[in-house]
Formats: sequence, C-alpha cells, structure tokens
Amino acid sequence: MDEADLIARYFAPLAGPGGLGLRDDAALVAPPAGAEIVLTADALVAGVHFFAGDPPEAIAAKALAVNLSDLAAKAADPLGFLLTIALPGDWTPQWLEVFAKGLGDLARESRCPLLGGDTVATPGPLTLSITALGSVPAGRMIRRAGAKPGDRLYVSGTIGDAALGLALRRAELEGAPAPPWVDALDAAQKAHLVRRYLVPEPRLALTPALRACASAAMDVSDGLAGDLSALLRASGVGARVDLREAPLSPAAAAALRADPGLFEILFSSGDDYEILCAAAPEQAVRFEALAGGAVTAIGEVGPASAGAVFLGPDGDKLNFARDRYSHF
Amino acid sequence: MDEADLIARYFAPLAGPGGLGLRDDAALVAPPAGAEIVLTADALVAGVHFFAGDPPEAIAAKALAVNLSDLAAKAADPLGFLLTIALPGDWTPQWLEVFAKGLGDLARESRCPLLGGDTVATPGPLTLSITALGSVPAGRMIRRAGAKPGDRLYVSGTIGDAALGLALRRAELEGAPAPPWVDALDAAQKAHLVRRYLVPEPRLALTPALRACASAAMDVSDGLAGDLSALLRASGVGARVDLREAPLSPAAAAALRADPGLFEILFSSGDDYEILCAAAPEQAVRFEALAGGAVTAIGEVGPASAGAVFLGPDGDKLNFARDRYSHF
Repeated sequence: MDEADLIARYFAPLAGPGGLGLRDDAALVAPPAGAEIVLTADALVAGVHFFAGDPPEAIAAKALAVNLSDLAAKAADPLGFLLTIALPGDWTPQWLEVFAKGLGDLARESRCPLLGGDTVATPGPLTLSITALGSVPAGRMIRRAGAKPGDRLYVSGTIGDAALGLALRRAELEGAPAPPWVDALDAAQKAHLVRRYLVPEPRLALTPALRACASAAMDVSDGLAGDLSALLRASGVGARVDLREAPLSPAAAAALRADPGLFEILFSSGDDYEILCAAAPEQAVRFEALAGGAVTAIGEVGPASAGAVFLGPDGDKLNFARDRYSHF
Repeated sequence: MDEADLIARYFAPLAGPGGLGLRDDAALVAPPAGAEIVLTADALVAGVHFFAGDPPEAIAAKALAVNLSDLAAKAADPLGFLLTIALPGDWTPQWLEVFAKGLGDLARESRCPLLGGDTVATPGPLTLSITALGSVPAGRMIRRAGAKPGDRLYVSGTIGDAALGLALRRAELEGAPAPPWVDALDAAQKAHLVRRYLVPEPRLALTPALRACASAAMDVSDGLAGDLSALLRASGVGARVDLREAPLSPAAAAALRADPGLFEILFSSGDDYEILCAAAPEQAVRFEALAGGAVTAIGEVGPASAGAVFLGPDGDKLNFARDRYSHF
C-alpha cells in the first residue's frame, strides 16, 4: 500500500470539507466572520507519552484530545486538525483501521474534522503530531495572563486519576511493582483510572462558561501545582490554594485513603487534561451555573507578594519536591 | 535544561506576535479581512528525509521550506508556522542553537514567524513536524484540480538537482559508490547540487503570478512526472509534455551528458520543491511576465482521453518504470 492509497483508505473518510478530500497540497478553512484563529500543537511518542501496546483507538483519541484540551482552555470552538504520523515498519492495516476509527469518533464528537497532514515512515517509535485550530470572537481568547487578586480559582473534573492509571498500566505492561494502594480499589475503580490515563476528555463543554466569565485559563497537563504556578507567574499574581478542596474521583480518593503518601503525587503529575481557570468573584455564581457543576473552587488569587501557597492534607503549607511532570 | 528553558532560549526569539511569546497554551492569529486560511503539514524524520549528520541549519530550513513550498503552490501568503520537534537523547545546546538560527533565518526571510509547537524527547531519530498557515483572498486558492485542455504547463526553477545532490551525499556520508557522472562536474557544480538537496528554495515570489493567472498548481516534491500525473488526474485531463524542454541546471545538464541514463531519474525523483502549474493560453504572456523568467513551459494540457504523454530524450513517448518517489 503506498502513501496515497493509505490516505485514501484510512484518513480521507475523516476529512471535513476544508480537507478537500486530502487530495490537494493544502487545506482551506474559511474562518467565521470577525473571528481570530487559535492554534495549538502537541507531539506524542510511543514509549514516552503512551505505551506502544495501548489500544490504537486510545492512542488516536489521546493525540487529538490533548490538543482539543488546549482549545477548550482558550475557549475556542474547534475548526479542525492536521495530523502527521510517523509509522514504524511493523504497522498493520488492522492497527491503522482501528486507529483511524478512534480518531474519527472523537473528531466527529468534537466537531473537529481532519484537514490534512502527512504520513511518513520511521525507523523509530510511532510518533504523532497534531495541530488543532479553533476560532474565538476577536479579542476573546482566554489567556494564561489575566488572573487578578481576589479572583476565585477553579478546576474542572477530577485531578490525579491519570497518574494513578499510569501506575496501573506500568504494573500491567512493564512488570513494575503493583502500587501499594491497588488492593483498596475494586475492578471498576481501577478501570476508571486506566481509562482516564488512556483517553483524556477534552472539556469543550466549558467553552461558553469560560468565554463569559474567566479572567485566565490553561489546561492542566503537567500537574495541577506546577501548571497553576505557571498561570500565576504569567498573570503576575500569587494564590492560596487548599488542595484538600481539589476534586478527586472516588477511585483516587480510595487510593489516597489507602496510601496518604499519594497526596503530593496527585497534584504534581501529568495527563489530567482538566481546565484550570480564574474568575472574578462577582462572576462566580454565573460561572458555576454556566459550568453546570463541572468545576470545583480550589482557592483564591492574591498579590504576587503573597506567593503561591498550597495547603496540604493537614492544612499546613505544602512544599512540592517537584510540582510538575515533564515529558522532556 | 527543562522544556520551558529550552523554548525560552531557542524558540521564543523566533516567535511572531501571534506566538504570544510561546508562553500560553496556544497561538492567536487574526486572519486578514476577507481571507481564507491555507494549511499544510509535513513531517521529516532523520535517516528518511535527511541525514542525521546534515548541518542543523539546513535540516531546520528544509523542514520549513517544504511547507512554504506548499503555500507557494497554493498562492498563499505565509502567516506563520507551528513546529513539533522530537529530540533524541544526544542533542546538544550547540546543535539546537544552530538549528534555531537556520529556522529563524528562513522564517524572517519568508515573513513566516513561529507561532507555537511542542518539544518532546524521543528514543528514536530526530523527528520534525511543521504545520504552516497562509492566507488567500476568499475563493482564490489555486487547486490541483482546475487545469483545462489547451492550458500551458509550466514548471519553476530547475528539475532533478536534488536527486543528484542526494546521490552525492550518499557517496559522501554512507560510502555509496560515487555516481558515474561525478567526474564530469566541477566543484561548484557538485556544491550546487548538494545545496539544492539540502535546502529547497520555496518559490513564494511566484505567488502574484499564480494568483493572477494559474488554473491549477501543486508543488513538485515527489518527482515531476508523478506529480504532474497527479495534477492531471485531479483536473480530469491529459497532457503532452516534452521533457526535453524541462529546465535543467548547468550541473544537472552536465551530469546528463555524462550519463544519459539519468534522464528518467531526473524527472521521477523527490525533493525538487518547484512549482508546477497550468495557465490558459490567453494568460501565458502575462503569466510569464509576472513570473519574471522563473518558469519554463513544458507542455500543454489535453483531454483526458489523450492520457499523460511524456516525450523522452529521442522525442518518443517515455514510459516511466516508476514516476514518483515515495518516502513512505
């Protein structure tokens, strides 16, 4: 199968009108009148960002979801995406078919069609790079910079699930020792954590709430504490955050009860793909209503001079040994 | 050096205003009023698309240039690009500094600033993926489909240099046998061919001519014969092309004289990054004037029923054993 056949068979069915059937040199997008274009790109490498043996539909969905998560954090409406895929020599049509199905399912669900890309061979691991485009009304992209003293801080969904899911996958796939908290979880809880690691859920449903109310936002991809510190630095402010208020899934809460040493890990590990944002206090009621219960207040922005203070399990100030995960 | 330091040091200086200092989750581009956005993405892998030992500034320039070449073929004005780079463990600050300089030089020269991207580690070879954005007045992107019987066919620059440059690099870097034509070339001619392989020159200067006059266009990246066949298929037409009219550099012409067996290779190998286009006969004078001598007429579009006929060195119909190079 040559590259043109492969594209026609697996990727062209995913293309939106702007993809021109993936038969031209480029894609063509007509931005909505008065809109600005929001652009983000993330690369994922087998063995670094996912396990080569992960389900192909999950690998595909993750590659797209981490980009959609950035669009969601900027309150952008998806317009489409481009994918470059470097395939190792041992790829099979079966693998690619399931990969394309996973990609297409999330693309349809998030109204973010494939626009173009490139398929190449690699002697190395499977490597994916996605660039996603969104649109915002001019001047309305939510930045990292913009949080002001007095703003409330919110986070969507639950934090720390993916870190625990990764530990479970390591034990399963790489023979790493089973984590000490594993016996405290039932099968459904373990499956929940693994699913949260495998397939992030981009929080695009928050876009109206963020656009209406947020003063600053970013997605939590490298650990809540480190990412929040980045948002505060960009905004030139400090904050007091009570991590006991941070939202945990029942599975993560059970793991934490079994192993209190997890506390710091939950808030400093990668792959949450939740939205962290700030909103002025007078916007709080409206924001929470528009968000429909999908966010949790975790603290308040203060002056830069007060620094970034995280309260730990005993209500005392927590000093992270390492507040952020790095894939690099 | 962590990822944030690396970005701040090497890539942030290349960022245009839309890149927001590479300190947010996303880039923000305000498209010109009434414009449509043209998007293209290409991935390059060390050992597949370039030699790992190629000069870092040439690797960087090639990665951007192949994308700019697609924008040029669509008559799009560059708006910016996103880069994802997967770095093997043995990268050095010196390497990255020269890489960034090469990238920045071409970005400035082509008014195509860096907008964003991602930097990740890989256990495999250096892998680059660039998505480039351009703009066209609404409805004015030049497609592959659009050539009509009677149109003249043109190609920019010279064809086949990169294929010969690649053969010289293989002999130099991989100990492949020296090509039989090498002794017919002087040092400057050999250097010209190698440079043409290492650093394509995107033909952005042709944009006004293409936008004013072309009925169809694409860039020649995988071999003139195969790419022209793709353009003809997309347009639903045939053509008669006299390859004796195809433009050769003095170096390629000298090699061909020394080894007439090169003829088919020159027109079916990759990495030319020239523009192939069609223009109605009544546009020919204007097109050639606007192009300023940078294009050569190579044939004429005919009905689909006539097929794609390539005339070879003796004026007879040439049947390519393989009309197109594939990196996949």
